[in-house]
Amino acid sequence: MTETKMKNMPKPNHSKDIMDRKIEHLKIPLEYDVQHSKNYFEDIKLVHYPIPDVDFEDIDLSIKFFNKTISAPICISAITGGHPVSKELNEILAKAAEEENIIMSVGSQRAGIEDSALMESFQITRKVASTIPIIGNIGLGQVSSPNFELEDFEKCIKMINADVMAIHLNTLHELVQDKGDISYKLFYKNFANLRKHTQIPIIAKEVGTGFNQDLAKILDELGFDGFDVGGTGGTSFAAIEAKRNNFNKQMYTRDPAEVFREWGIPTPVSVFLVRDVSQKLIIATGGLKTGIDIAKSIALGADIGGFAYKFLQSAWEDRKKNSISNTTKEIRTLKNELRSCLWLMNVDKIEKLKGRRDKCVILGELYRWLHQ
Amino acid sequence: MTETKMKNMPKPNHSKDIMDRKIEHLKIPLEYDVQHSKNYFEDIKLVHYPIPDVDFEDIDLSIKFFNKTISAPICISAITGGHPVSKELNEILAKAAEEENIIMSVGSQRAGIEDSALMESFQITRKVASTIPIIGNIGLGQVSSPNFELEDFEKCIKMINADVMAIHLNTLHELVQDKGDISYKLFYKNFANLRKHTQIPIIAKEVGTGFNQDLAKILDELGFDGFDVGGTGGTSFAAIEAKRNNFNKQMYTRDPAEVFREWGIPTPVSVFLVRDVSQKLIIATGGLKTGIDIAKSIALGADIGGFAYKFLQSAWEDRKKNSISNTTKEIRTLKNELRSCLWLMNVDKIEKLKGRRDKCVILGELYRWLHQ
Amino acid sequence: MTETKMKNMPKPNHSKDIMDRKIEHLKIPLEYDVQHSKNYFEDIKLVHYPIPDVDFEDIDLSIKFFNKTISAPICISAITGGHPVSKELNEILAKAAEEENIIMSVGSQRAGIEDSALMESFQITRKVASTIPIIGNIGLGQVSSPNFELEDFEKCIKMINADVMAIHLNTLHELVQDKGDISYKLFYKNFANLRKHTQIPIIAKEVGTGFNQDLAKILDELGFDGFDVGGTGGTSFAAIEAKRNNFNKQMYTRDPAEVFREWGIPTPVSVFLVRDVSQKLIIATGGLKTGIDIAKSIALGADIGGFAYKFLQSAWEDRKKNSISNTTKEIRTLKNELRSCLWLMNVDKIEKLKGRRDKCVILGELYRWLHQ
Amino acid sequence: MTETKMKNMPKPNHSKDIMDRKIEHLKIPLEYDVQHSKNYFEDIKLVHYPIPDVDFEDIDLSIKFFNKTISAPICISAITGGHPVSKELNEILAKAAEEENIIMSVGSQRAGIEDSALMESFQITRKVASTIPIIGNIGLGQVSSPNFELEDFEKCIKMINADVMAIHLNTLHELVQDKGDISYKLFYKNFANLRKHTQIPIIAKEVGTGFNQDLAKILDELGFDGFDVGGTGGTSFAAIEAKRNNFNKQMYTRDPAEVFREWGIPTPVSVFLVRDVSQKLIIATGGLKTGIDIAKSIALGADIGGFAYKFLQSAWEDRKKNSISNTTKEIRTLKNELRSCLWLMNVDKIEKLKGRRDKCVILGELYRWLHQ
Repeated sequence: MTETKMKNMPKPNHSKDIMDRKIEHLKIPLEYDVQHSKNYFEDIKLVHYPIPDVDFEDIDLSIKFFNKTISAPICISAITGGHPVSKELNEILAKAAEEENIIMSVGSQRAGIEDSALMESFQITRKVASTIPIIGNIGLGQVSSPNFELEDFEKCIKMINADVMAIHLNTLHELVQDKGDISYKLFYKNFANLRKHTQIPIIAKEVGTGFNQDLAKILDELGFDGFDVGGTGGTSFAAIEAKRNNFNKQMYTRDPAEVFREWGIPTPVSVFLVRDVSQKLIIATGGLKTGIDIAKSIALGADIGGFAYKFLQSAWEDRKKNSISNTTKEIRTLKNELRSCLWLMNVDKIEKLKGRRDKCVILGELYRWLHQ
Repeated sequence: MTETKMKNMPKPNHSKDIMDRKIEHLKIPLEYDVQHSKNYFEDIKLVHYPIPDVDFEDIDLSIKFFNKTISAPICISAITGGHPVSKELNEILAKAAEEENIIMSVGSQRAGIEDSALMESFQITRKVASTIPIIGNIGLGQVSSPNFELEDFEKCIKMINADVMAIHLNTLHELVQDKGDISYKLFYKNFANLRKHTQIPIIAKEVGTGFNQDLAKILDELGFDGFDVGGTGGTSFAAIEAKRNNFNKQMYTRDPAEVFREWGIPTPVSVFLVRDVSQKLIIATGGLKTGIDIAKSIALGADIGGFAYKFLQSAWEDRKKNSISNTTKEIRTLKNELRSCLWLMNVDKIEKLKGRRDKCVILGELYRWLHQ
Repeated sequence: MTETKMKNMPKPNHSKDIMDRKIEHLKIPLEYDVQHSKNYFEDIKLVHYPIPDVDFEDIDLSIKFFNKTISAPICISAITGGHPVSKELNEILAKAAEEENIIMSVGSQRAGIEDSALMESFQITRKVASTIPIIGNIGLGQVSSPNFELEDFEKCIKMINADVMAIHLNTLHELVQDKGDISYKLFYKNFANLRKHTQIPIIAKEVGTGFNQDLAKILDELGFDGFDVGGTGGTSFAAIEAKRNNFNKQMYTRDPAEVFREWGIPTPVSVFLVRDVSQKLIIATGGLKTGIDIAKSIALGADIGGFAYKFLQSAWEDRKKNSISNTTKEIRTLKNELRSCLWLMNVDKIEKLKGRRDKCVILGELYRWLHQ
Repeated sequence: MTETKMKNMPKPNHSKDIMDRKIEHLKIPLEYDVQHSKNYFEDIKLVHYPIPDVDFEDIDLSIKFFNKTISAPICISAITGGHPVSKELNEILAKAAEEENIIMSVGSQRAGIEDSALMESFQITRKVASTIPIIGNIGLGQVSSPNFELEDFEKCIKMINADVMAIHLNTLHELVQDKGDISYKLFYKNFANLRKHTQIPIIAKEVGTGFNQDLAKILDELGFDGFDVGGTGGTSFAAIEAKRNNFNKQMYTRDPAEVFREWGIPTPVSVFLVRDVSQKLIIATGGLKTGIDIAKSIALGADIGGFAYKFLQSAWEDRKKNSISNTTKEIRTLKNELRSCLWLMNVDKIEKLKGRRDKCVILGELYRWLHQ
């Protein structure tokens, strides 16, 4: 999903390596338990309201997502790209997202820029989903590279006619992978340039370790248009790397991927902290399992709930059956659960739930996280 | 126990369906664990007082319940009605309630209004219990229906010579059942009319998801005479529905009944919240297991403790033996436990315990629920 | 250990009954787990001090106990009396207490007053322990009886040349036993008379359900000279009764002894609450297991730690071997543990530890008990 | 590791005894679980920062340790000395410490002073590690002895050309061992003399029961140059003694070593408390397992993280293979983990993390320890 060190490696092997890794990154979460050990959404209770004033079917889940309107605040988070299998998955996901009118995101587009043969694994999304918002994706490593060129960024946008670009921040993943090219000192300079020359919104996307408040404030001021908080609670990239058995026992006594398995800020905490310093878009990703979790995220201050693992599962099944039905069913399930929450809380529009922390009761360790 | 969509269905099948469902609703809690996973009464400790000034047998458990006096603040909560088996159970329960002079409640009377053949499963209660208070019961769905007629409500009252009518609020149950007729927009208008033309008290009854404070305040002002808070802790109707295997796998990836199994406000929390905004009658139902739990509820602010599951169990046994002894024994057990609590806390009248929160120590998660 | 309803029963059977019960009360705790499920001493941590200024052996554990001085703040709590086996146990316990110069207590002396043949099971204690303080014992039921006579109380004192008399408060035990003679309305009147005519100190002794603050204040003002707080954490008399299988299934669906098994105020909580309203003597009994627990109790405000279960175990073993060595070893173990605590906290006299709550860290549920 | 009672025993046996004990003290932690049951570092979470401004390899872990500079704030804590096996272990540890430029510590040097044949087990460290800081070690018992002579202390310094001397405080260990020579009343007088005549820094070192705040303040004012807090969380010396089966069953009913197994102040608590009253050096030892734990300790206020158990394990393995590779690998692992933490928190110099409690979230029981 994330990679940064192309330039230093011979191209063929490199592509081969990345492609193998991409498949591993898809298969490991499907086959092993690489979820964080603690999911803080369980520490949140929503307050029931026994007589809804609104009819169930009249509840309005639609929101504006920049200049498009989507049917519900649901985002298929960045899962894959840059591999023949990715193409198949992205086609399924994008078709389903188009059918259900929600947001589609693609995995890191670097492979597509580097190797035009891989580009179609991304392009397919727009091909089958002409109207929905699609979020493009490039890594912090690329944007921070001395070789970074504006043109590459524009290439990403054009590849999928992106509505929004996400820059993914994946420091822990890089660290436990193999600490290749992990210098980000040029990021702020390069981003300033990027920001000046890019018309579409750009969001900062964490991938499982969460946003802290200080950086969110800085990025908000630098011109980012939103955050995908990507906190702990769901898939741990460190746990995936621990499973990939790439730990060099000659070098260390313990696998850093194991030691840092649980590192990061829980998703609900991150939503809470970021909302307190920014009025920009917030996508809550990381450990959401149901539509109830979307409602919890929104009550804490998010705009949208993002899901990668659930949709990886559904699309993988769809791929076997050459359909999109599992994925559309998953989207409809999430919508129904979210609508049910709103109905049971007597909220007629999803927008009215945003930031309603009085609708939440915070228990357990989450209480401590939020009160210090 | 709750149903709302009669009009749209052919009558015979409908009655058959409802009757089958009624039996399932009785049998599932007896055969499976469909209790909420967490019972917050365990988080409350009552404060012992080592020298009682009152003699055990002199402790006065009696309270006024509107214009009758009952021997103890115990209510047989709404369990059933509208089925031959219901008739047998209701006869047992009402006889025992009459013998012990406590409150009897019937299940939803809709079936009785629609089909006069089913009426006697309700009428039996008054036939065998001429003096005690009996609480009638109709659903939010009926009261909110465009076809709602005052006459139906009066029919319910007359059917059992009801002392009090309860309108049950069962949104979650309707939702996970099959989302039939779940529009309540006419409720406030219809209720205003009802209130104006009904002489007996009307209470609002939750059925396992609990009252929140905002709605309790509104209903108090609208003229409701009390609340049966029916919070989480006891039987989960969502759990019952999950067991009924009516989940349509074609439609969703997860059974909403499973996803919302634990939804709601815990009973002690609901008592606490409602008492803070209303001085009307409060019946604490949902998860009470012993007379100690009645005492805890009353110390938090309730007037009466309600039990459905315990009495369903006792009446089911009694039915096999053609007796009422299990049920009267259960009532006497609750009274003895409650009296014991009062004696051990040096309280000579149950009325004096009401709202004595200083007699409670609140531990665990309940502390968090009550302090935010 | 506690009994109150002699007068109404034919004497021979009564004595026989009581005697059987006395043996059961001794054997059940030795053979079954009848301890409370939660011991709150585990929630207290004492603060280590790495360099003691005092030599270990120079630490002074002695305290004044009314007009005698004892070697350490340890009390053998009331265990038994009124049975041939009791006599053997009391002889062992008193001899050991005399050898180690700590406090000895006897079980309820009622049997001794009623039946002079049983008196020697109490008298033996003073016979073998001429110098130590011995605490006599009579029940709340006796003192509250309309037949109560000052002479009986004096008889108790003389029987053992008691230094102090304890009036034991055992309401829960009476309640779950058989609710015989449980009227205490005359207590305050009878006690006032008793207080006026008795020269030696009188303390109020709870037996496993703990003192609350309100009553402690009242008893302090009435002229009680101290409290044996006897809170939850150790042996549960309700649990013992549950094991005695005297539950009348004809009467109730649940054994009250099971339902009230955990009723009461934890020992450390009770010490804390009572000390806040009284400067009189406090003995902390109920769930203490080691000398560390004595130190914890004293830091919270107690003067002395009491143990019944530990000494019942040691004396039972000694009885088999016709020795007192297990019991003296247990006393020395407690002393050594207490001295070790003081040394590790750099406290040279036990008196200086009293009420030093700054030497305690309170964790877990105990924190909630103490902060509301 | 600690011993104090040589003078009273015949020399040969004594040396033999001590030597046997030294081997037991090394082997028991390797073979049995003698770790404290609770490690409070798990209750601390560090706050992730998604975009590091510094390059991973540029992060500066070096600190000044008195007048030397070390590559990272890591200390090999006092493990052993005074035995042929100790010599082998100390050689391995010192070589590895020299190679990695971190701090080396030796075990109690008393044996070396008493018996010059044992001196080389200490001398070896400086022989193989000419440049790094080496911390010498003598016990509270020796310094407090009436026979204490300044010359002995100087002998310790010279033996290893010590940069710093630690006086270890091991009261619990002495207590549960056999309560030999445990009088420390001369400590303050002897230390004042020592302080006046010693040029190098002297630190106070706890060995697993932690520093409290009051004593830390006193020692700071007396002229100690720092603290090795040695709190609970790692190896429990009481647990080791419990395993040594030296409990005299004739004397006590319970092994004091079992009863006091968990006695003490947790390491993070001790760091927190000591830093609040002293600006001197703090080494956090006791239960640290990874470089993340070093970072947590430093954020709470420590300067350095110390490890004994990890290095005992690594050196024991190295000894079998006649290498130092396990030990150097362990040091590099700790450095890499610590550097990773800093990078993931966007801290470019370890010094900047010191006392940054805002970078920590405190959960669970640790919260209670720190907030009373």
